[in-house]
Amino acid sequence: MPPPFDTEKLDRLLDEAGVDLLLAVTKHNVQYLLGGYRYFFFAHADAIGTGRYLPIVGYFRSRPERAFYVGGGNEAWGLEVFPVWTPNIVTRSWTSVDSALAAAEFIRKAGFTFGRIAIELSFFPTDAMDALRRELPNAAFVEALPVLEELRAVKTRQELEYLKTGAAAIVNSMLATFQNAKPGITEAELVEYLRLEQTHRGLSFDYALITTGLTYGRAPSNRSWSPGEVLSLDTAGYCHGYLADMARMAVMGQATPLMRELFNEIRFVQDQTRVAIAPGRPAREVYEAGRRATEQCKFGKSFGFVAHGMGLIAHEAPRLRHNDEIGYDGAHAERPLEAGMVLSIETGIKHPEAGFIKLEDTVVVTESAWEAFGDWGREWNEVQL
Amino acid sequence: MPPPFDTEKLDRLLDEAGVDLLLAVTKHNVQYLLGGYRYFFFAHADAIGTGRYLPIVGYFRSRPERAFYVGGGNEAWGLEVFPVWTPNIVTRSWTSVDSALAAAEFIRKAGFTFGRIAIELSFFPTDAMDALRRELPNAAFVEALPVLEELRAVKTRQELEYLKTGAAAIVNSMLATFQNAKPGITEAELVEYLRLEQTHRGLSFDYALITTGLTYGRAPSNRSWSPGEVLSLDTAGYCHGYLADMARMAVMGQATPLMRELFNEIRFVQDQTRVAIAPGRPAREVYEAGRRATEQCKFGKSFGFVAHGMGLIAHEAPRLRHNDEIGYDGAHAERPLEAGMVLSIETGIKHPEAGFIKLEDTVVVTESAWEAFGDWGREWNEVQL
Repeated sequence: MPPPFDTEKLDRLLDEAGVDLLLAVTKHNVQYLLGGYRYFFFAHADAIGTGRYLPIVGYFRSRPERAFYVGGGNEAWGLEVFPVWTPNIVTRSWTSVDSALAAAEFIRKAGFTFGRIAIELSFFPTDAMDALRRELPNAAFVEALPVLEELRAVKTRQELEYLKTGAAAIVNSMLATFQNAKPGITEAELVEYLRLEQTHRGLSFDYALITTGLTYGRAPSNRSWSPGEVLSLDTAGYCHGYLADMARMAVMGQATPLMRELFNEIRFVQDQTRVAIAPGRPAREVYEAGRRATEQCKFGKSFGFVAHGMGLIAHEAPRLRHNDEIGYDGAHAERPLEAGMVLSIETGIKHPEAGFIKLEDTVVVTESAWEAFGDWGREWNEVQL
Repeated sequence: MPPPFDTEKLDRLLDEAGVDLLLAVTKHNVQYLLGGYRYFFFAHADAIGTGRYLPIVGYFRSRPERAFYVGGGNEAWGLEVFPVWTPNIVTRSWTSVDSALAAAEFIRKAGFTFGRIAIELSFFPTDAMDALRRELPNAAFVEALPVLEELRAVKTRQELEYLKTGAAAIVNSMLATFQNAKPGITEAELVEYLRLEQTHRGLSFDYALITTGLTYGRAPSNRSWSPGEVLSLDTAGYCHGYLADMARMAVMGQATPLMRELFNEIRFVQDQTRVAIAPGRPAREVYEAGRRATEQCKFGKSFGFVAHGMGLIAHEAPRLRHNDEIGYDGAHAERPLEAGMVLSIETGIKHPEAGFIKLEDTVVVTESAWEAFGDWGREWNEVQL
């Protein structure tokens, strides 16, 4: 079975980073490196007994034949149904230290005793790390995130299909939730209904941010949605592990002229931003287009605008702007967009007389320019009283 | 707001372990220490951007007024709807290192510069740990798991209510799934239907182990369930974060005499085991009762039997037997059961002519003896052809 990802790209990224061995442990990166596999038994929880589930994919630069997978103690069940490509596999771990020791064994067998190992430092557990440092005292450990998110930045046709299916399902779930609502329904009830609608459409529910009326707090509360009030929904769910994350608006009754004016400006910014999207254009132009459109709006000074890559997780590569705080340097902003990159674009406003109004769309870079997934319901969805 | 758990018990446990400060980071332990709170935005995923969500609850032994909570950067949304008791709260972290640094700040403010800190070593990320070690060079770090699971071992009335509601919902979801099945339905389709039934009943789906016919692989596959074949379902879901985990059986058509005989023996072991359950009786008697009953069975030599505590996670305290491999020593087995402890009891057999047959029940220790939650459907659920 050939590796299910671009090994040439990964080898190059590892080489540029001076990394000899990559160890991935998060569910999204394990899924990516194993061609879509995520062990169903631990898909939603890690903790069990006195230990935890810690899968580890090991990939030696330019030596895919040495790649290994460390699975959980009962993971033969999962691998029987979804065989994975790694030539070396062991499924016997019930704790994070078990996993680390099994990985160390594969690593030593491969003749690797010193060099640089990239790991996901924000996810690799302390006890497993301590075990690995003991087992491989001459290795150096560095952060794997930049390599892994760059590897995932351009989506395959299959990935785009999941993202498109997910986007459609999540928008349809929101629209169904709006149309089911009756005056007096609470935010928590709306979200529970939405969760069910997502599940019916095959998604795995992630979260819903919600506001009603003139409130800005976005947690599902017991507040009732009343006639004349806006409802903002910003919700996420997974389709085969790929994120769908969109925001749509509704009003109980008819939108007021102020609501229409605000919404039209928000939508204007969303639409103008897309114009900057095409392969070869620098990433920063997305933000520049958003800023220019915002400046043309009457309410623009109060807009919140953000755009970011998305895929297996939220806010992944490509990075579209310079942001020291979270470690995106200027090089990201200059980088040309590529066909197959997927962007989430968000514009919102908190208005004291109308409430919180927001749109969030999913836009993929295509060979010619762009395509928006789930691109409907971008209007005031008016619930009949 | 008073602490929502037994601080006297926690202080005693920390004292016995020689621990001065407890830091909890897993969703289940954060929920426990914060009286049921779990931040909805990160309830299903941790990774975001270049960082991750890492909540930290800090509790200084015998000084609840110094307790703190470190939340995520947008977690004011969650805390507005569900205020928590910790006197000190900060919500500004977007990475695990942010969280560690915020915790270190609270710790120094409390005048703590050396001593023993208990953390969840299998979950505390490497980069956060490295930051904490730098910030608190004179502190020693030890495993928090034994203290935390002991703290949670006896359930409150509210927790028992969630466990009871969850058990009923999960059994009803299985029975609905059986009755909806038509010949030729695949294992994967059955599990998707089950997921929907769980969601309809308010549960958050965790996983389903499934076998049909004479197969033993328990992953949902594309194998069809055909007339005359058994179906074993062993599934978990969460009710307000509390685990429901039960197993029930069905047959497409009528159970054969062999199936009935096997099932009756399995059920006999399950029922006999309960007889050993009462407050004050040593935990090991549960296993002893199971073994004695198994020895009376014709097929007993092939039975798999296991019993363990459950609650926010699977296989938690009380530990019912000595098991060196996973670090349960003999003291656990001698420990008297207490009212409010919750046990999962499982018996199964792989039979070459009938297939995989299993029951799993949830039994709570009561003041007088025991009560089984969701205690129906413990028979051959025959699907009409």
